[in-house]
Amino acid sequence: MTDLAPLVNHQVRLAARPVGLATLENWQLTTEPVAEPHEGGLVIRTLLLSLDPAMRGWMNEGRSYIAPVGLGEVMRAGGVGRVIASRDPHWAVGEYVSGLLGVQQYCALDAAGVRAAGLARVDPGLAPLPAWLNVLGMPGMTGYFGLLEVGQPRVGETVVVSGAAGAVGQMVGQVARIKGCRAVGIAGGKAKCDFVVDELGFDACIDYKAGSVRDGLKHHCPKGVDVYFDNVGGEILDTVLARINPKARIVICGAISQYNATEPVRGPKNYLSLLVNRARMEGIVVFDWAGRFPEAIREIAQWMREGRLRSREHVVEGGVQRFPEALNMLFSGENFGKLVLRVADDA
Amino acid sequence: MTDLAPLVNHQVRLAARPVGLATLENWQLTTEPVAEPHEGGLVIRTLLLSLDPAMRGWMNEGRSYIAPVGLGEVMRAGGVGRVIASRDPHWAVGEYVSGLLGVQQYCALDAAGVRAAGLARVDPGLAPLPAWLNVLGMPGMTGYFGLLEVGQPRVGETVVVSGAAGAVGQMVGQVARIKGCRAVGIAGGKAKCDFVVDELGFDACIDYKAGSVRDGLKHHCPKGVDVYFDNVGGEILDTVLARINPKARIVICGAISQYNATEPVRGPKNYLSLLVNRARMEGIVVFDWAGRFPEAIREIAQWMREGRLRSREHVVEGGVQRFPEALNMLFSGENFGKLVLRVADDA
Repeated sequence: MTDLAPLVNHQVRLAARPVGLATLENWQLTTEPVAEPHEGGLVIRTLLLSLDPAMRGWMNEGRSYIAPVGLGEVMRAGGVGRVIASRDPHWAVGEYVSGLLGVQQYCALDAAGVRAAGLARVDPGLAPLPAWLNVLGMPGMTGYFGLLEVGQPRVGETVVVSGAAGAVGQMVGQVARIKGCRAVGIAGGKAKCDFVVDELGFDACIDYKAGSVRDGLKHHCPKGVDVYFDNVGGEILDTVLARINPKARIVICGAISQYNATEPVRGPKNYLSLLVNRARMEGIVVFDWAGRFPEAIREIAQWMREGRLRSREHVVEGGVQRFPEALNMLFSGENFGKLVLRVADDA
Repeated sequence: MTDLAPLVNHQVRLAARPVGLATLENWQLTTEPVAEPHEGGLVIRTLLLSLDPAMRGWMNEGRSYIAPVGLGEVMRAGGVGRVIASRDPHWAVGEYVSGLLGVQQYCALDAAGVRAAGLARVDPGLAPLPAWLNVLGMPGMTGYFGLLEVGQPRVGETVVVSGAAGAVGQMVGQVARIKGCRAVGIAGGKAKCDFVVDELGFDACIDYKAGSVRDGLKHHCPKGVDVYFDNVGGEILDTVLARINPKARIVICGAISQYNATEPVRGPKNYLSLLVNRARMEGIVVFDWAGRFPEAIREIAQWMREGRLRSREHVVEGGVQRFPEALNMLFSGENFGKLVLRVADDA
């Protein structure tokens, strides 16, 4: 067991709620000693942290599917770590785990905290650690259950996904292909679109920065859109709504175009396409499917072994201090695959 | 068999596509003789015509769930009539029928027209003729299948319906009550709200003209909203979206607040409530359920006999000439129950 006394825990706390894009003023860097765990408690050393668009929502006040991060609290974040001290018989020192570790180098949990963190075992033999924050982590679970359970694609249908080069998007398109669908992505820039088609095997990818998404959908979805998995909201959602087929399913997973908006969210003006096409628009929150994560992880890991599914991460180096900057890369669209922050060098 | 030779068929045709609310310039009143039917054809004397918000959509150009009415064509309308000449062995002279008769005194159909008109037998012994355009007609079928099949209410849930005093709205709330739900209407004006509660038996009705719908929902839906059946769109849809429960179902049936809009439709700014609440928004088009109309009619007629369901119509007198004026009553909110135009005095 590690001697905790000399350790210093660098943390990033929410200092003020942002208006629009978060700036350095919204964050506070703090340090704390690391205390020995009490009965039922654990200390986890953070190796990798997940950067997710949903984090921007957690910084706002108000009712949502999860409580907002409180002012002065360590910022909530999913991550992968290693148990370095344990007084919980379910978790042994040396084990790899994933869960809500927070933006900090060490996550010290009491017994209640262990339950709240949603810890799960990570098997580094099954897939490299970063994949556990990607296709085997929350984005992977979101894409898997969002597409298969909410989107319910059938063989031969056309599945369109926005944010196609992002963590959830890459999962959705790859699973759509595995299930016998035509997979068409929407992403920003030629490099991302090439990656989506050449490396992830989508049938096509529309570059929304280069031209009309409407024309792209006409060209690449000649039989219309049966499932649209929306990560972006805004104008792209409206454009796809105008091209859906009867009985189409629209999975509302996110709206990254709107998360930093200081004006009210732009509602989909074409929502009456749902009426005309007797189509359905439905939200997905991944935590609802937690009971089925193990079965999904088994299936996805099998697809990886068979070479049918890739897990692409964009790893930012430099530890928790770089969190504020790394988070904003999501909103400027700089990331290429799942954005991950490396917190410890041996991860 | 009636001698058709002396008959003159007064008709209302679409003369120009309206911008905003239709005016008299959009209509042309014409007369035609009534020809004897050929083999397979029918002539139906129109008794009652149905006035529906959807008619405004049929007057626009462009793709929808049904082709637009062509310029110069008799305006499409559902109605109840009586067969006065028949060379189709399936339909006997003297029978009452419902179907797309058009805004005209006589509906002369060839064999193909008989199929396209969607004719159904009307049994005046089961319910008075106006009810066949209301709870036993398209609005009734829309409310019945939209609520039960798309909304899927469960005992004890709260069902909210806008346009509650209208044809579809009155059906939705009454069926919700029969199915053991709390039924809360939204309507404009005290008289309508009183009617909805006192005569139709809703648990409550919110007067959107008198105060805040948000406060009304807080007060009358203390356990939140499980099913929202939307006939109006616009601001009311947004207000209800902010009050839905997890796993809520929103049935998109219409958007009467938007049908005459000359600006783009207002999209629901609160649509991300679908994500937060993993809720569903889905369109209903009644024609999809045509195969099940007979079973629904049997059940609804049974509820009427048992005194559990009322059919309230607002009948405008004066024949097809009053159609343009009567149609606009829907949009000014003047009607009280299902709006029907009497075309023949013996109806």
